[in-house]
Amino acid sequence: MNQQDLIAQLREDNGTKIVMLVADGLGGLPIEPGGPTELEEARTPNLDRLAKEGTVGLSIPVAPGIAPGSGPGHLGLFGFDPIEHQIGRGVLEALGIGVEVGPKDVAIRGNFCTIDAEGRVTDRRAGRIPSEVGERLVAKLAEGVKIDGVETLVAPVREYRLVVRFRGEGLGDRVADTDPLQTGLHPLAPKATDPGSEKTARVAAEFLRQAKEILKDEQPANFLMMRGFAKFPAISTMEEVYGLRSAAIAVYPMYRGLARLVGMTVVEPGKTIADQFAVAREQWGKYDFFFIHYKYTDSTGEDGNFAKKVEVIEALDAELPKLMELKPDVLIVTGDHSTPSRMKSHSFHPVPLLIWAPATVRPDEVTSFGERPCIRGGLGQILAKHIMPLAMAHAGRLQKFGA
Amino acid sequence: MNQQDLIAQLREDNGTKIVMLVADGLGGLPIEPGGPTELEEARTPNLDRLAKEGTVGLSIPVAPGIAPGSGPGHLGLFGFDPIEHQIGRGVLEALGIGVEVGPKDVAIRGNFCTIDAEGRVTDRRAGRIPSEVGERLVAKLAEGVKIDGVETLVAPVREYRLVVRFRGEGLGDRVADTDPLQTGLHPLAPKATDPGSEKTARVAAEFLRQAKEILKDEQPANFLMMRGFAKFPAISTMEEVYGLRSAAIAVYPMYRGLARLVGMTVVEPGKTIADQFAVAREQWGKYDFFFIHYKYTDSTGEDGNFAKKVEVIEALDAELPKLMELKPDVLIVTGDHSTPSRMKSHSFHPVPLLIWAPATVRPDEVTSFGERPCIRGGLGQILAKHIMPLAMAHAGRLQKFGA
Repeated sequence: MNQQDLIAQLREDNGTKIVMLVADGLGGLPIEPGGPTELEEARTPNLDRLAKEGTVGLSIPVAPGIAPGSGPGHLGLFGFDPIEHQIGRGVLEALGIGVEVGPKDVAIRGNFCTIDAEGRVTDRRAGRIPSEVGERLVAKLAEGVKIDGVETLVAPVREYRLVVRFRGEGLGDRVADTDPLQTGLHPLAPKATDPGSEKTARVAAEFLRQAKEILKDEQPANFLMMRGFAKFPAISTMEEVYGLRSAAIAVYPMYRGLARLVGMTVVEPGKTIADQFAVAREQWGKYDFFFIHYKYTDSTGEDGNFAKKVEVIEALDAELPKLMELKPDVLIVTGDHSTPSRMKSHSFHPVPLLIWAPATVRPDEVTSFGERPCIRGGLGQILAKHIMPLAMAHAGRLQKFGA
Repeated sequence: MNQQDLIAQLREDNGTKIVMLVADGLGGLPIEPGGPTELEEARTPNLDRLAKEGTVGLSIPVAPGIAPGSGPGHLGLFGFDPIEHQIGRGVLEALGIGVEVGPKDVAIRGNFCTIDAEGRVTDRRAGRIPSEVGERLVAKLAEGVKIDGVETLVAPVREYRLVVRFRGEGLGDRVADTDPLQTGLHPLAPKATDPGSEKTARVAAEFLRQAKEILKDEQPANFLMMRGFAKFPAISTMEEVYGLRSAAIAVYPMYRGLARLVGMTVVEPGKTIADQFAVAREQWGKYDFFFIHYKYTDSTGEDGNFAKKVEVIEALDAELPKLMELKPDVLIVTGDHSTPSRMKSHSFHPVPLLIWAPATVRPDEVTSFGERPCIRGGLGQILAKHIMPLAMAHAGRLQKFGA
């Protein structure tokens, strides 16, 4: 029996509230040997108090040594095995901009590009055209493309990026990307890598043929490329597994999309973390579980800006009392992966993890929240997918297993 | 290959002795924030010495977040995956009152109820009749019911609860409960949910028909309902997996039953832990493995009596030198789950674990036995099912794997 089935069998509703605060890319590294990490450097009196009252540890997002993208990183946090449940890029991009993806759909990431008179790619991002231009071109495609027997949808993402969705019977998603990955080459023709995806490849080829005609007089975005062909994955919802009415309060489309994938309701988040906590307060009575996503710990890490990452951690900490005023029964603070500013990228390092739950927590000897103290925490080092069962247990939402 | 098969392949007999001392529900919680747990509060010079000489850690009974009943808790300690090997409720109830269950048996939980003239349930627990009444009615059923080709056994549990056991050929256990779960409805007829259980359903229906006649003039317990139909689970014995001649020294029927389930010999335990250790001394030459069960750490926790739980831990500690005089090669001290007196119930919290084995232990820096020190122990946090392989290894009873 897998974890979801076991939890679904044991869960019960007792009206408790669980908050999962995900500081994206939270984990870090010292910028110089022997120094503190970003989280250790940051002045975080509120997180430190929660660490003292609660228990800490380290979360391994997927498996030892594996640096995850946002998709697997979050699926793990939601309690699903990220290796077993893989989500295609096209689906993630579509969900992120609010495009629904259902069982008959294939979603594809598109990007406008520039081709020369011979059809060779001269700019893979079409000069990073502004979003308004991207939106106009997407509208032109949506208006112009017609393919028999398949419903097409085209939607803008940002700048040169768009989503294409095909809806119809018999559309597999095993189609290779058309991006040649360097300039001076022709875009590749869509090619199926299994027989069940031949129709999708034909539909995509026809879409690209019509698009080339429609865009031919545009500059610099006179064509597009497709990648990340993906179908909706078979995955249970938060309600099915945990019986939790779940709300996502996330500013960025990707995380809203991931939350939708597991059946969360996406509520309007405002712009800042203070807004997000205010939204949690407004919605407090309507949901059992709140996923609150904070992006800036990741983006500052990706930028390699140690000082700025420290600053956004402190900014998050400063707002925490507003969240604590809601008196959640269980608060989880962690990240979906580490993004050390020294590496300027997602990394495989385990992520600091904090569980605060006044009714049930067994405290440890740790009194501050940071990578080193977390090594000595009571939670040990656990797979991210085990966090949700622990949250459910701390919330008193799991019956005893067996007699 | 599963763990049992691997161990069975590598095991060898070298005459060493392993003792597993299970303090039921050992793990606890501080009764007030920042305070000690029951085990930390208790004065335990002997356990502390063993922790110092040995190595400690924490045992996760089933999986993170899962609070187990006694059945899965002990199966884990005996080295079996408690999710893979689930023991039906009827079998556990039977074991709990000392009713043996074998391969030809189906065990069922029964409860007396009250029905009206139309046969509708008016009280699902027959007014919680006292145990003496329950015992009298069980004797009446035991005397009166006769079913061709099947041996029936009826035994009282407590108040309105009883156990029914059918012994015969071809008795499956896929039969639905007959309790309609609310008053005003007729009890359900026993219904097989697979073809192999049709005979059991027929036998149960005949049992209920005769019982209704026998009980018709009783008040308020004039009928009974059946639930938790269960067969003896397919599970290997301690001898098959580990090659260990194993003795169980347990006072309470449930733990004797669980030990029998995995093929241990149940020896008469006396009444106190001192008696149990004396029995171990008497039986020392006859067995390789001794499972010694101490109940009171659980029952005091269930009662929410922190001070009393501290006291029974101290009482256990005080007797330990008598066990150590036997010079076991390996001593395991742990619990099947936590029972924090603050929660008055089994909980999911990991359980303090101690392995003492003078010939092979790699000591850690921990010098006392308690929840917080165990976090820093050399064993880390491990699944309970991994304890037996470690015990076998420390006993020198496992050959090298591969060349």
